[in-house]
Amino acid sequence: MESGKMSMAILGVGLIGGSMGLALKHALGDRIYIKGCSLTEEELKKAVEVGAVDEGCTDPVKAIEGAEIIYFSTPVLQILPMMKQLLPHIVPGTVITDAGSTKSSIAEGIWTLLPEDVYYVPGHPMTGRERSGVAAAQKDLFRNKAYLLVKDSRVNTRAQQKIRRLIELVGGCIYELNLAEHDRCASLISHIPHIMASAMVNLLEHNPEYLDSSLKLAGGGFKDTTRIASSNTVMWRDICIANKNEIAKHLQQMSALLQEMENAVEAGDIDYITDFFATAKARRDQILEDTKKQYDLI
Amino acid sequence: MESGKMSMAILGVGLIGGSMGLALKHALGDRIYIKGCSLTEEELKKAVEVGAVDEGCTDPVKAIEGAEIIYFSTPVLQILPMMKQLLPHIVPGTVITDAGSTKSSIAEGIWTLLPEDVYYVPGHPMTGRERSGVAAAQKDLFRNKAYLLVKDSRVNTRAQQKIRRLIELVGGCIYELNLAEHDRCASLISHIPHIMASAMVNLLEHNPEYLDSSLKLAGGGFKDTTRIASSNTVMWRDICIANKNEIAKHLQQMSALLQEMENAVEAGDIDYITDFFATAKARRDQILEDTKKQYDLI
Repeated sequence: MESGKMSMAILGVGLIGGSMGLALKHALGDRIYIKGCSLTEEELKKAVEVGAVDEGCTDPVKAIEGAEIIYFSTPVLQILPMMKQLLPHIVPGTVITDAGSTKSSIAEGIWTLLPEDVYYVPGHPMTGRERSGVAAAQKDLFRNKAYLLVKDSRVNTRAQQKIRRLIELVGGCIYELNLAEHDRCASLISHIPHIMASAMVNLLEHNPEYLDSSLKLAGGGFKDTTRIASSNTVMWRDICIANKNEIAKHLQQMSALLQEMENAVEAGDIDYITDFFATAKARRDQILEDTKKQYDLI
Repeated sequence: MESGKMSMAILGVGLIGGSMGLALKHALGDRIYIKGCSLTEEELKKAVEVGAVDEGCTDPVKAIEGAEIIYFSTPVLQILPMMKQLLPHIVPGTVITDAGSTKSSIAEGIWTLLPEDVYYVPGHPMTGRERSGVAAAQKDLFRNKAYLLVKDSRVNTRAQQKIRRLIELVGGCIYELNLAEHDRCASLISHIPHIMASAMVNLLEHNPEYLDSSLKLAGGGFKDTTRIASSNTVMWRDICIANKNEIAKHLQQMSALLQEMENAVEAGDIDYITDFFATAKARRDQILEDTKKQYDLI
């Protein structure tokens, strides 16, 4: 590797890791050298072919050799064990970041492990697709999308600036939240909607005698509302384990909310039902309006 | 009106009625004359301007004068009262259809009212948008979308053929179900997803201290999953009243399903959680595959 070139390892070159590689290679070309690590030779070959990484290694120890930046984009429960495995091979000055959808348990674990001269900047790009693997990667996946960085006294400022620069290069909009805020908000805005999308599909399985007819009738509403139910199973299983307190609490709130609505429907409570839909519509319309404004500014 | 011309009244020229008018005028031009009825002069003016109807009347009695076909596309709870009001003015031979999202209560009510020589063909186009009103109407709204017609001994075959012809002209894919089947399937595939989309938005309101941060993080997943929460409030309130038995039953199933998931998340039950996501993903991927096949055939 030539000197002056930025060097990076992407561990888990799937949808997110692959898109980060594509976007950075697109932005920096030969000024960055990316080694990718995936479980299979086949995925790595594809990652090199599409231009997401310069080189592929199935051994993460080899992948991080010479890397100034290590980007973890594996399912969240694999991050900490892999970090433990890599620890003896990480050199002083290395900046580590991750794209995990939950932050508290990973970050606390990593900070406990790391020596003072290795820097961890917890992150979470709020983007994705229902398809997974490097074949689904897109260089514009992060463009104009929120990219969360954790606000915490343990984050080294210069290390965070390095990661900020990368996020800016791929077009992400940086927001900062602390660990607990992130895990609560991510549950509300991402984890619960994923569980709900899957629950809506599973409700059909609970009514097998009407499954075929229901599917024939499925329109755009059903397809959009359940799109994310096609996401990666292992990734979402891990999220439910890693952010269990927030998710369990919000699932309880959600069941209570649906039971209230059930009672209102049974009682024909026009006021409750009207308010239920009107409140959601007002907020949803405002989100759309805000999104438009955000894009207008860009 | 010239003889030989098809004549039709669309009662409720909003998203669905307006799109039906646009599509039929596009397909038939001057061979059809459409009178539209809406609550306000302004909406009617817009309906004429965009070419959804030839003429607008705020009085439904005037709108149906001379119409061989009456198309009801008002919120569902308005159909039966409006039908009662119109009954003395409906001439023998008239074919009546509707686009109501619930069928049993409307159809039983209408069939009780109608004389033998006026024909009712219950229908339900499985399409829509989150925006409402004639300004949101599109001539291709029905194209390649399921259009349900009710299978029932009380449906006159020749009258049904007239409606089939219209649906074919606007590009819809006709499916037949009986009243009970329709109401159950529509609840599973459309009514429950609408309630869930609104519930996900309302969950944010139940966590006001995290609302702003959550909204900043909202990505494509949240936006897609809650898109239909922006739909017309009165329309969805009416559906919850008109199809209350099915909706209440499925809401109960849904709360139970989410409570099971909550228990699994709290217990860290990897097998349950994996199965929950994997089952949904398999079915959702298959829906996508089937949709592609369907489009390949067209």
